Amino acid sequence: MKFYDCSTAPSPRRVRIFLAEKGISVPTVQVDLRNNEQLTPAFRAINPDATVPSLELDDGTRINDAIGICVYFEAIQPRPSLMGESAEEKAIITSWQREVERNGFYAVMDAFRNWARGLKGRALPGPDDYEQIPALAERGRLRIAHFFERMNKRLAQSEFIAGDRYSIADITGLVVVDFARSSVKMTPTEEHKDLRRWHAQVSARPSAKA
Amino acid sequence: MKFYDCSTAPSPRRVRIFLAEKGISVPTVQVDLRNNEQLTPAFRAINPDATVPSLELDDGTRINDAIGICVYFEAIQPRPSLMGESAEEKAIITSWQREVERNGFYAVMDAFRNWARGLKGRALPGPDDYEQIPALAERGRLRIAHFFERMNKRLAQSEFIAGDRYSIADITGLVVVDFARSSVKMTPTEEHKDLRRWHAQVSARPSAKA
Repeated sequence: MKFYDCSTAPSPRRVRIFLAEKGISVPTVQVDLRNNEQLTPAFRAINPDATVPSLELDDGTRINDAIGICVYFEAIQPRPSLMGESAEEKAIITSWQREVERNGFYAVMDAFRNWARGLKGRALPGPDDYEQIPALAERGRLRIAHFFERMNKRLAQSEFIAGDRYSIADITGLVVVDFARSSVKMTPTEEHKDLRRWHAQVSARPSAKA
Repeated sequence: MKFYDCSTAPSPRRVRIFLAEKGISVPTVQVDLRNNEQLTPAFRAINPDATVPSLELDDGTRINDAIGICVYFEAIQPRPSLMGESAEEKAIITSWQREVERNGFYAVMDAFRNWARGLKGRALPGPDDYEQIPALAERGRLRIAHFFERMNKRLAQSEFIAGDRYSIADITGLVVVDFARSSVKMTPTEEHKDLRRWHAQVSARPSAKA
């Protein structure tokens, strides 16, 4: 098994935290995104989508998506459960994970990739080049602010994002909050006290260092 | 159990097809998106995200996401499997479903919502108003063209999107192709012969009428 990673990128970090929570370690290859190694023919033969993470199984099968990789490990090692056990719990966790990704992760990605000088012509990850759209960077920042508000409300009612136990929704949430800070310098303010309580709590888990 | 639907919208159609494939029927309530019923306080008490679909379970639990709802029904009625049986199959189907959603569904949504006159100020679904960004509509069209090409290549190698059997990835794919046609008048051309072969095949299943 081989895990294609990039230690500075948010998407593969989701998988690294997931694996750390399960106590699984996988031989890892670093892909140098800063020098566009993901766009080389050698890497595109591994993942035509030209993104990390990617997981290669021993039979050569490749799983080219962060959540797809988590689904694999959840199935081969169900405990501790990070994606839910009952039908209802699986559905709730899936829904929250997706909401955090849609309204949080993609908002930060829009804000960052449509603004950073080093990403001119690379406003989306993947094999195709797209020009930056400044209005989309601005909209991204507005959406991040809305996302912080909504998560703060949610976390006033609930210990973790999807309910009373830690799940993959918290992993995505943690990565979003840290990615917003590192990429576009947006952080929850003092008004977001429940979001901050939760962020401190999930950041204190050993897996957060992954 | 109660399913909040809108018969003309693409997201709830994903669930309707999924349920039809499993032979499950659920009492349904239509939400009038054309008149912004999803933004009323009454509906936002049901789903604060102000989107359809939403599923209400008998104990009052709500699942406010199309894929979250599918996860629920896959867990309570695993056959026919639409999300995979082995760990590997689950991971591959999840990855393809997400790729089709990310590069197809969101591309059509960008192209449509940033262009349609009736959606001024409503460039994203959900509770918050965002102005249309014309450059994003244009980028959406470009991405749809790339998506058709990539799917055509994939379907030259594979009977269905995620492999040799029909799955939730095909459901998302079918909804994307039909949504592109109905919303922004983009359809696979004669060059996309494998995509067209697949589209005819999945459209001929009785579930496609859902």
